Amino acid sequence: MNYTLKNISKIFNVEFSGNGDFFVSEVSSIESASETSVVFLSNKKYLELLEKTKSKVVITTRELSKFCKHNIIITKDPYALFAKISNLLNAKLDFEYNIHSSVISNTKNLNRLIHIGANVVLGKGIEIGNKSFIGCNCSIGDNVKIAAGAYIHPNVTIYNNVIIGENIIIHSGTVIGSDGFGYAYEDNSWIKIPQIGGVVIGDNVEIGSNTSIDRGTLDNTIIGNGVKIDNQIQIAHNVEIGENTAIAGCVGIAGSAKIGKNCTIGGGAGIQGHIEICDNTQITGMTKVSASIKKAGVYSSGTPLMLNKDWLKSAARFKKLNEFFIKNKKN
Amino acid sequence: MNYTLKNISKIFNVEFSGNGDFFVSEVSSIESASETSVVFLSNKKYLELLEKTKSKVVITTRELSKFCKHNIIITKDPYALFAKISNLLNAKLDFEYNIHSSVISNTKNLNRLIHIGANVVLGKGIEIGNKSFIGCNCSIGDNVKIAAGAYIHPNVTIYNNVIIGENIIIHSGTVIGSDGFGYAYEDNSWIKIPQIGGVVIGDNVEIGSNTSIDRGTLDNTIIGNGVKIDNQIQIAHNVEIGENTAIAGCVGIAGSAKIGKNCTIGGGAGIQGHIEICDNTQITGMTKVSASIKKAGVYSSGTPLMLNKDWLKSAARFKKLNEFFIKNKKN
Amino acid sequence: MNYTLKNISKIFNVEFSGNGDFFVSEVSSIESASETSVVFLSNKKYLELLEKTKSKVVITTRELSKFCKHNIIITKDPYALFAKISNLLNAKLDFEYNIHSSVISNTKNLNRLIHIGANVVLGKGIEIGNKSFIGCNCSIGDNVKIAAGAYIHPNVTIYNNVIIGENIIIHSGTVIGSDGFGYAYEDNSWIKIPQIGGVVIGDNVEIGSNTSIDRGTLDNTIIGNGVKIDNQIQIAHNVEIGENTAIAGCVGIAGSAKIGKNCTIGGGAGIQGHIEICDNTQITGMTKVSASIKKAGVYSSGTPLMLNKDWLKSAARFKKLNEFFIKNKKN
Repeated sequence: MNYTLKNISKIFNVEFSGNGDFFVSEVSSIESASETSVVFLSNKKYLELLEKTKSKVVITTRELSKFCKHNIIITKDPYALFAKISNLLNAKLDFEYNIHSSVISNTKNLNRLIHIGANVVLGKGIEIGNKSFIGCNCSIGDNVKIAAGAYIHPNVTIYNNVIIGENIIIHSGTVIGSDGFGYAYEDNSWIKIPQIGGVVIGDNVEIGSNTSIDRGTLDNTIIGNGVKIDNQIQIAHNVEIGENTAIAGCVGIAGSAKIGKNCTIGGGAGIQGHIEICDNTQITGMTKVSASIKKAGVYSSGTPLMLNKDWLKSAARFKKLNEFFIKNKKN
Repeated sequence: MNYTLKNISKIFNVEFSGNGDFFVSEVSSIESASETSVVFLSNKKYLELLEKTKSKVVITTRELSKFCKHNIIITKDPYALFAKISNLLNAKLDFEYNIHSSVISNTKNLNRLIHIGANVVLGKGIEIGNKSFIGCNCSIGDNVKIAAGAYIHPNVTIYNNVIIGENIIIHSGTVIGSDGFGYAYEDNSWIKIPQIGGVVIGDNVEIGSNTSIDRGTLDNTIIGNGVKIDNQIQIAHNVEIGENTAIAGCVGIAGSAKIGKNCTIGGGAGIQGHIEICDNTQITGMTKVSASIKKAGVYSSGTPLMLNKDWLKSAARFKKLNEFFIKNKKN
Repeated sequence: MNYTLKNISKIFNVEFSGNGDFFVSEVSSIESASETSVVFLSNKKYLELLEKTKSKVVITTRELSKFCKHNIIITKDPYALFAKISNLLNAKLDFEYNIHSSVISNTKNLNRLIHIGANVVLGKGIEIGNKSFIGCNCSIGDNVKIAAGAYIHPNVTIYNNVIIGENIIIHSGTVIGSDGFGYAYEDNSWIKIPQIGGVVIGDNVEIGSNTSIDRGTLDNTIIGNGVKIDNQIQIAHNVEIGENTAIAGCVGIAGSAKIGKNCTIGGGAGIQGHIEICDNTQITGMTKVSASIKKAGVYSSGTPLMLNKDWLKSAARFKKLNEFFIKNKKN
């Protein structure tokens, strides 16, 4: 489905200049745009690329618009508008409501206004809301509740008693509700603590591929509304994550950590168990968060990238840092 | 199934005070307990929570028992007893011995005293011990041996020739026996080294979700009895892990590393290849273990959490550390 | 199939001494060799082990050959030759071309010179080249193109429109083509950016287990020929990886990073988004690559392993490093 500049201007209530009847067919990067692609420009440094693009429609700010030609859509945040136009042009195809004949279900009276792909295995007492899509080869345990508008990609595993809100997306390989890592140590061996809590996931959550979210030990693991979780992430038992927090790939969050709202956690960061991180905190990539954070800000740990031969020297000195401080103490 | 205080006292040989005929129905956290929940208290700092709990049965130490009211179970290690009572109250439900009609098996004469879920695919020559449970959508390769009492959750992949001991638990998404990462470099390209070793896993091992354990190159990758492995872990070819070692989420262990018995490895730690870690070693979270450890103790690396603006300064200084030491050398 | 020393000498054009009619049956480690095992020695420090081995055939350099007895195969790079002989002796068994009766396919006229295992689900318009093997329980999306000679282990998920070259190997649990982690932030919530780019993977690539490779946002994520990717790796949207680069377990590569040819990335390293790493770069394990690398070399970050009690002191001093430098500045 194509839209004219006029259509777009109307739908999103934004200003444009140029040919209102011009049709846009797709969103593109500046480099690979076609004539009818819409592209965005929010940083002056890409002006050079814009010179060479085939695109004849650019979304940009009023300030940058003076550098643009052809058709221009003006908005305060070009990237956000680009996202919305992309969602318009790439609307998820309507899928057929269909429960594939190969599905093995122990739930009777399953909602029929849903799509369930081939070879899915469903436990007892499952509820799935309207317009939800469950990809092939998924396994969903007993008493799982999934609200309307879910899109679950193939090969996801959801354990018993997990509760999931509206309009969530879960990517392949992800496991939700596996046992937390809980043992008591006695007489040189580990006694497993039964993990009898659940997982409660809010609305509008997206979870990437090959991520793990453990169930709580006694109470629940809780993922707030609007939380975005990338690939290869570990969320341990009883973790709580506040609304709209975004967590990049390879992050590990240990048991009972509580993360506030609107935080961003950079890739590869590690969050220690039983700590609290306040709202609006930013953690940079690969940071070790070994203590609670009570004041919003940007936090980091680690050392900068160095040539290995230089790093070896700094690293050796790091070991002697305390001694050196004491020796060089100014009186 | 409910138990009275008298029952519990008898089963675990522990002392109690209060009403011996009081029924406990579940284990709970202090915060979410019901009247018939049993809770535990091993640290004075939770006394305040205990004041407000609905629970009328607390497991605690003799020392802390004086602060408790209602019914009290007294033991040296409240958490270990709590674990045992939880196992009693949450005994895994007996499952039916049944091989689902959708199972595709190349093994004849499979043991019938087991449960195999829907859509499981089994190779040739597989042996599975009594009372084992294989969840739906699992794939198990040729000649795999799994001893009695296994509980393998849905969607686990086990490659050919893997050997697994008694009473193991494996969570969803985990892969056991994938090829080690082994190549020889010649003429600007990599020659794959066939990975023809196996994986041998001991008794009472638990493995979390989305974990990878590679097969050995020539000899075996070996996981000792009682080892506990969390989610999102990488165990490379020819790694050996000693008995009762516990490994938290997101740890990576490179090829041929040997880890001793009764070690604990914190989340996100990385263990270099071809090194040895002695028994009873503790590694804190996100530590880089770049050398063998020959003396038991607690080991760490990294830098502490800082505000990014301060960290940038320390990080810049780290690069100049060697120079600075030389300049400031005390004569 | 067994080979004599003469056979091997002829096939690989290498010199040998000893009994040309001696049969070798397998490759082994020096420690677990049988009489007819071939072993390799490329480092003097293993001579002691060689003394005790049962093997009667060693691959070694001319220089080390003087320390060896029985049958000796001489070559410049014993490990590379060992790899080749192992490939000869462990040639992948020919599999039957067969599409299992349980396969659910929306593609008509699928190539028949392939093997597709049980319970595989195939979308529309899929092309799979000759002699390819797709393991059981895989899910392959619409319009995926896989060239000849692929070996895809069980339980792999490939999303729509992924393009894969010749002779690739993909291990279980891996997900290719999941959505990149892309959102615009507006009014306290995240707007998803549709991920409409693809993934293009070259020839002779191997990808380990439980790895994630995201599709591009607008353009493609690109993996060059000969790239080797280990387990538990995250490759974000629009990453580009040059030919023959090898990436060890647990590495995370953030969006739009460009990695050159012939690089080696150590386990657990993290590569920041939007940076470039030049050809022939080596990154040591757990290094945080927070800036572009323009000159080939070995790069590192982090601090060395220490006893925790000493580390705590160095770590505390690290926080005060800037202050200390200023105070101790030499005039």
